[in-house]
Amino acid sequence: MKDLIATYYFRTKDGVDASYAANAIREEQTTGTWTSLSTVNDKTAYVHDLDGSVEDLVELPDGGYLTRICFPHEIFEKGNIPQYLSVIAGNLFGLGKLEAVRLLDIDLPEKLCGCGPKFGIEGVRKIVGTEVSCRPHIGTIIKLKVGLNPKDTAQVAYEAALGGLDLIKDDETLTNQTFCPLFERLEAVMDALDRAKDETGKQVLYAVNVTTGGDRIVELAHKAVSAGANMLIVDVLTAGFSAIQALAEDPAINVPIHVHRTMHGALTRNPHHGIAMRPIAKLVRSAGGDQLHTGSVSGKMGSKAGEVLADNIEITKPLSYLKPIFPVSSGGLHPGKVAAEISKLGTDIILQAGGGIHGHPDGTTAGTRAMLQAVEAAVLGIPAREYSLSHPELAAALAKWGDK
Amino acid sequence: MKDLIATYYFRTKDGVDASYAANAIREEQTTGTWTSLSTVNDKTAYVHDLDGSVEDLVELPDGGYLTRICFPHEIFEKGNIPQYLSVIAGNLFGLGKLEAVRLLDIDLPEKLCGCGPKFGIEGVRKIVGTEVSCRPHIGTIIKLKVGLNPKDTAQVAYEAALGGLDLIKDDETLTNQTFCPLFERLEAVMDALDRAKDETGKQVLYAVNVTTGGDRIVELAHKAVSAGANMLIVDVLTAGFSAIQALAEDPAINVPIHVHRTMHGALTRNPHHGIAMRPIAKLVRSAGGDQLHTGSVSGKMGSKAGEVLADNIEITKPLSYLKPIFPVSSGGLHPGKVAAEISKLGTDIILQAGGGIHGHPDGTTAGTRAMLQAVEAAVLGIPAREYSLSHPELAAALAKWGDK
Repeated sequence: MKDLIATYYFRTKDGVDASYAANAIREEQTTGTWTSLSTVNDKTAYVHDLDGSVEDLVELPDGGYLTRICFPHEIFEKGNIPQYLSVIAGNLFGLGKLEAVRLLDIDLPEKLCGCGPKFGIEGVRKIVGTEVSCRPHIGTIIKLKVGLNPKDTAQVAYEAALGGLDLIKDDETLTNQTFCPLFERLEAVMDALDRAKDETGKQVLYAVNVTTGGDRIVELAHKAVSAGANMLIVDVLTAGFSAIQALAEDPAINVPIHVHRTMHGALTRNPHHGIAMRPIAKLVRSAGGDQLHTGSVSGKMGSKAGEVLADNIEITKPLSYLKPIFPVSSGGLHPGKVAAEISKLGTDIILQAGGGIHGHPDGTTAGTRAMLQAVEAAVLGIPAREYSLSHPELAAALAKWGDK
Repeated sequence: MKDLIATYYFRTKDGVDASYAANAIREEQTTGTWTSLSTVNDKTAYVHDLDGSVEDLVELPDGGYLTRICFPHEIFEKGNIPQYLSVIAGNLFGLGKLEAVRLLDIDLPEKLCGCGPKFGIEGVRKIVGTEVSCRPHIGTIIKLKVGLNPKDTAQVAYEAALGGLDLIKDDETLTNQTFCPLFERLEAVMDALDRAKDETGKQVLYAVNVTTGGDRIVELAHKAVSAGANMLIVDVLTAGFSAIQALAEDPAINVPIHVHRTMHGALTRNPHHGIAMRPIAKLVRSAGGDQLHTGSVSGKMGSKAGEVLADNIEITKPLSYLKPIFPVSSGGLHPGKVAAEISKLGTDIILQAGGGIHGHPDGTTAGTRAMLQAVEAAVLGIPAREYSLSHPELAAALAKWGDK
């Protein structure tokens, strides 16, 4: 496959023919306009090569339609993801003849892919030392997510690391505000994780949030890595896919990139309109994220299990040219929900709990232990309630939050 | 006003109290989480300063609610627009207790604004020489929008410039593809515009599309300006607000920035969910765009006149700290629609026609003249039909497309 195939769901306005509508999407995003042109003639170069084609069109029981449109690879500027989006997810969303239209999926040809992640699942497992057990990774966000100063942030990180978790991340809204300057925070947290390592023997990853404009993010990331950062977090939809790509392509940024999708709900939530998570996830893998939030099946954001699983499969399936990346399940998770997440999403996943760790009645370290115990139980196939009889931290968590 | 006020529309799921829901948005985007935390205690710094507040909550006749949430300025990193978005337009869109939620507007305090546009309406009028007449500017996009080689592109630009228009732009999907390399195109078009100036005496602006990743856009723009570009176009939603900001803040980029909003329909179209155009427009003005597509009232994209006008007022109203910027009306315009656009949107506007110029029966130059004649007629208050009796290019356009 050398061209890009984009799959759309659409609903037409009354009286608009579906085939006409599918073709209107193709035309709007390639060479077409609404009237005949004096500038098109026999001498015009390339025209027909860039027209693209409607590959198929299927009517759905809900009255909508599914269509796959083939965009010729020549219409894209290789490596320019903003330009890709202007073709596959551009003006079509405003077409007056459509009631709604949603980009469901893309098949991105290898030729248009980026270099992909430096680490991927395997690379991150090697750093953390879980390549043998292959259990899910346990992550946490520091809570309060905003408001703590660097010293208090580091204390929370230290307590979390003592409990044995794998990674700690900044909140997606925490960057370099004056109440918690980035480099002070980074230094304090890395010191705290070093102290924890002296006690536990384990290296914990800390994703410091370098989200900023694409013109500044590479320099900021260089400085963060020089200052000891062993992971970065970037908000892909607010900073842009190119921000991820720029970090992934830079050999000096030799740490994994944790990708948050904040703002995605503005695009993904309406099932008939906007952009589904699938193409976003594929573009993040191509651009070089190592870990990506794709949703939990039992948390506060209420994603559908089938969709999350399908998205996760897309970013974890083997490809010769892009490493598999870690899906992150997050949002309202606690130890009582771990078994459900693993049974539905598998073990190549990061389970991230914020309130579900720092809200533990006995504090952050106990909260982390409870999450790990819940993972052990699920991987062993033992119900959490049963396992909690011999694991008091898990018992206290289940007593507070239940096991559903 | 020192803090940021964001206005949201939302609908709750059955049984969810509206006041609880508004507070859930505030909590999710500031300091809250879904459970009590062990890390919050009397010693925790700053907590209450960052909580924000629900300023008001109003029930609407359609069953939805309007709420204004105040976000304290300390929660923002000044100048980091991706970070602003993660607060005002972040996870809230996924909250399970809400049926739908839409960011309608923001009041951005001066302290959080960028430097704004270098030129604005007045600056662009000075370049083009319309500061006295204050008529709407006439713009065109080259058509075919993709597929022409640099030579054919320049020929179309030349013919358009001969007709006396003000600006020419690349399509939002045309960047630096192999079928029409950017610098070859730029050189050919600027040569063509110089030749046209020899004949007409008028300098036409050409917005070359430098949309690319934020890490590369500043360098690309420097090269484009060195190669003679007198305007740039950037796709703000695919490249990111920071791309605009980086160009506007750079003193070497001394040309106006034309901002396209491709992909906006994925966010803006559903009236109950997503992000309205208003906050996008305000952020573009703050970041430093000089011209912004906000919609036409009579074209193929079918925007509502009242909304477009209100968006245009927001970016053209006087502020002591940000210059007014040019709204661009585009999408299916032709000479027969000019009077309606001007009567509803005023004269501080750019009327952009693609097919409505290059589709003219007598070619691009005649098409440009017809648009200008339609503008003259509207400004003079003469019906287009009447004016066309003495203006054959306008007559031919009305004969093809009508005057509605």
